[in-house]
Amino acid sequence: MSTTERTAIPPEQQAVEERLVGHVLESFAACQDPRLHELMTGLVRHLHAYIREVRLTEAEWATAIEFLTQAGHITTDVRQEFILLSDVLGASMQTINVNNPTHGDATEATVFGPFFVEGSPEIELGADMAFGAPGQPCWVEGTVTDTEGNPLPGARIEVWEADQDGRYDVQYDDGRRAARAHLYTDDQGGYRFWGLTPTPYPIPDDGPVGKMLTAVGRSPYRASHLHFMVTADGHRRLVTHIFPAGDPIGRKDTVFGVKTSLIKDFEQQPAGTPTPDGRALDTTWSRVRFDIVLAPAGV
Amino acid sequence: MSTTERTAIPPEQQAVEERLVGHVLESFAACQDPRLHELMTGLVRHLHAYIREVRLTEAEWATAIEFLTQAGHITTDVRQEFILLSDVLGASMQTINVNNPTHGDATEATVFGPFFVEGSPEIELGADMAFGAPGQPCWVEGTVTDTEGNPLPGARIEVWEADQDGRYDVQYDDGRRAARAHLYTDDQGGYRFWGLTPTPYPIPDDGPVGKMLTAVGRSPYRASHLHFMVTADGHRRLVTHIFPAGDPIGRKDTVFGVKTSLIKDFEQQPAGTPTPDGRALDTTWSRVRFDIVLAPAGV
Repeated sequence: MSTTERTAIPPEQQAVEERLVGHVLESFAACQDPRLHELMTGLVRHLHAYIREVRLTEAEWATAIEFLTQAGHITTDVRQEFILLSDVLGASMQTINVNNPTHGDATEATVFGPFFVEGSPEIELGADMAFGAPGQPCWVEGTVTDTEGNPLPGARIEVWEADQDGRYDVQYDDGRRAARAHLYTDDQGGYRFWGLTPTPYPIPDDGPVGKMLTAVGRSPYRASHLHFMVTADGHRRLVTHIFPAGDPIGRKDTVFGVKTSLIKDFEQQPAGTPTPDGRALDTTWSRVRFDIVLAPAGV
Repeated sequence: MSTTERTAIPPEQQAVEERLVGHVLESFAACQDPRLHELMTGLVRHLHAYIREVRLTEAEWATAIEFLTQAGHITTDVRQEFILLSDVLGASMQTINVNNPTHGDATEATVFGPFFVEGSPEIELGADMAFGAPGQPCWVEGTVTDTEGNPLPGARIEVWEADQDGRYDVQYDDGRRAARAHLYTDDQGGYRFWGLTPTPYPIPDDGPVGKMLTAVGRSPYRASHLHFMVTADGHRRLVTHIFPAGDPIGRKDTVFGVKTSLIKDFEQQPAGTPTPDGRALDTTWSRVRFDIVLAPAGV
C-alpha cells in the first residue's frame, strides 16, 4: 500500500498522535546538556514521523525489536552487526560526508570500515605491505600535498586491504599481520609501496543484516578497494579508499563508499614487465597512481 | 550548538549528501515486497534526514553503536532493553496510537508492556486475582459494551499488575503466578474482581536505557496502573490500563501511557467498610469502576 492509496488520517486521530510527540519532546526539557537535548529530541521527531508516515503495524514493530535483538546477540569484539547495519543503510557514509565536507580539491573521504587495526608495521618507501597475503602484486605511488599544491613531507600513510580471498588479516585464524602497514612521505611528499590489486568481497552476511539484504534483493558485496588513512600536522585527517576502474561491483558497493573521484586506473602489466623498482616479476602485476590532497585542519 | 547558530551548509555539500540519499534509496529498487520497500526506504529517508539535520559527529555515531551493542548484550528472554528503549522514546505508544485509532466512545488503548504472560489462571466473577501478591485490596467492577451501548456477554478480560513492591510475578524468584488472571463477563456484560490498588514502580534502569534517562534528567518511573486486555468476537482487541487519579507519577509516566480517559477514581475505603460482596476486611481497601467500550473489528 503506497502512501497515496492510504485512507486519510482523520484530524482527531492526527491530534492524538501529535499530542504524544509533544509530550515525549517535553520529557527531555530538564536535560542539562544542550547537544544531548538536540540529539534526543531530533531522534524522537524523526522516529515518530517515520512510525506515523508508514503507519507501522504492531507486527512490524515486533519484527524490528527482534531484528535489533538478533543483531545484538551476534555482535562480539570481532563482529559488529550494528556497524554493518549502519553501513548498508548508508548511515556510516552520510556521517562521513557530514564530517568531511568537500573543500576545494581536497581528496574525498569514504567509510572507515571495521578492519583498521592500531599498531600496523612501518615499511620503507617502496617496500611490500602484503607480508605474504595472497593476491596479484600492485605498485601504488603518488604524492601528498595541501590544497595549494605544496608537498607534505613526513605525512603518515596507513594502508590496509583484503587479500584475494576477500579476507583481512584479522579474519585469519593465526593472528598474523598482513596486507596492512604504515609509511611516511619523502621530502617531495612522494610515496610508493607494493600492495595487492583489490578484489570484491561480501560483508559478513550470515546474520540479520545479511537476511535483510537478501529479503530486499541486495548484494552483500563491497566494491574492490584499498584503504588509506593519511595524517599530517595542520591538516584534516583523511580516511578514504581507492577503487579500481571497471570493478564488477563498483557503484553497487553495498556500503555506498564509491565516489567518482576515488575511482583509479589500476593498469594491468604482463608478467616480466620491468617494475618501477627495477625488478622482473614472473607474474602479472598492476600499477596505480593516487595523488592525495589534504584539506587544512578545522574545515 | 542549535540549528539556527550553525553555519549554513554550502550547496555543493548539500548536493553530495542528497546524492547519497538517492543512491541508498535506489539500492532497494529490486525489492519484490512493496510493503518492505516502503518500510526500508522510509527508514533511510528519516535516518539520513536526522544525521544531516543534527550534523551527527563521528564520535556521536560511535556512541550510538556502543549504546545499541550494550542494549543487545543485556537483552535476554526475560529482559528486553530494545522494548524499553522503544517505550521511553514514545515509539511503543505511537505504534499503539497508529493501530488503534480513536473510534467514537471506544475505550482508548495504551502500551502492552513486557509483563503479559499467556496461560493466566481463570477466575470466577468476584474472585481475587492477587493470589497472595502483597498490596492493598482493590474491588474492580464495570461493564463491557459495544459503541452502541449493547452489553457484550462472555467477553474475555485479562488483567495483570505489579504488586506493592513494584514487581510482577515473572520477576519473582519462585516462578509462581500471582496478580494476573482472566475472567468472562456475565449475561449483562458485567464483570467484577478483587485485585490490588496499583502503585508506581521504575522500569529496569540498570542498563543503557536507564543510563540515558539519567543523562537527560528523566525518571524511570511508570505511573501506577492496572493492565487490561479485552477480547470479544467481532470487536477490535483492546489492550489498555487504568490509572488512579492523583497518582504521584501520573503524566510523567516514563513510557507515555497515560490518557485522560483512562484515569479513574480509586476510592479509598476505611477498614471495616462493608465490601460489595458482603465482607468486612480488617484493612483499608479501594474500589474503582471501569466501563469498557469495544470498537468493532476492522476499524
